[in-house]
Amino acid sequence: MRLVDAIVLGDQRYAVERARLPDLPALVALLADDPLGSLRETTDLTVYERAFDAIDRDPHQFLAAVRDPRGALVGTMQLTVIPGLSRGGTTRLQIEAVRVADSARGAGLGSAMFAWAHDFGRHHGAGLAQLTTDKTRPDAHRFYARLGYAATHEGLKLAL
Amino acid sequence: MRLVDAIVLGDQRYAVERARLPDLPALVALLADDPLGSLRETTDLTVYERAFDAIDRDPHQFLAAVRDPRGALVGTMQLTVIPGLSRGGTTRLQIEAVRVADSARGAGLGSAMFAWAHDFGRHHGAGLAQLTTDKTRPDAHRFYARLGYAATHEGLKLAL
Repeated sequence: MRLVDAIVLGDQRYAVERARLPDLPALVALLADDPLGSLRETTDLTVYERAFDAIDRDPHQFLAAVRDPRGALVGTMQLTVIPGLSRGGTTRLQIEAVRVADSARGAGLGSAMFAWAHDFGRHHGAGLAQLTTDKTRPDAHRFYARLGYAATHEGLKLAL
Repeated sequence: MRLVDAIVLGDQRYAVERARLPDLPALVALLADDPLGSLRETTDLTVYERAFDAIDRDPHQFLAAVRDPRGALVGTMQLTVIPGLSRGGTTRLQIEAVRVADSARGAGLGSAMFAWAHDFGRHHGAGLAQLTTDKTRPDAHRFYARLGYAATHEGLKLAL
């Protein structure tokens, strides 16, 4: 099975690529352009450069850069392939930090990015996709329910 | 900072080690000895051998084998270090598949394993610990609340 490197919506082709270091300012801007993200992100790129390097060196991470037909970064998500013993040795696809630019919304790009992510997971042997979503994001919950996700778990966080 | 390779409870010392292939039958038995695990696990070790190999080859995974003073496997958990851009480039410690043997319960081993896991996370640069717990496990929710975890997120799953 070959993984397709693009999302096609109508007559528009969006490239899906492993993010590169020059994408970093646009990636951080996407993360910050969000009600929760705006509170959590900073303007100091240094911390993101270190994190980008760690992601890029880990072959089990795929930080996606989604580009519109003109090459502009309009989407991102981080995909992690996690092998595991439980559930009969099921490999998990974990999805984090999904963002779609305001300019690209309403055309189904978000749903298409998830379909792409699920293909990526199956391509890497994953039998389960998982993510957590903040309880203050009801629109996101409806979106994920439409994609077939079941809200079976509590998502717990602790600052270390 | 050196990571300690043991948990001490009273006068009992529990070794915490990277699991080895000969631990696999005992690890699978621990995963299956659980109301949900008993429905999800199988007696065919082959699938677990493949998964164990994938975990063992990934340097970002730590599958813990916790042994009692006699060397018996009494606990396990899988720790994954996930670098990320969001939250100012925060590295996450993800905790999955935690089990404590019935024989070892009531002495605080579970809490001590989490304290150990959090130290492991900090040792590897993590600023956030995260896990999901099935909504049908109210005892687990109280346990995690006592550890300081906040139930801020929905945990969503989708079979691929």
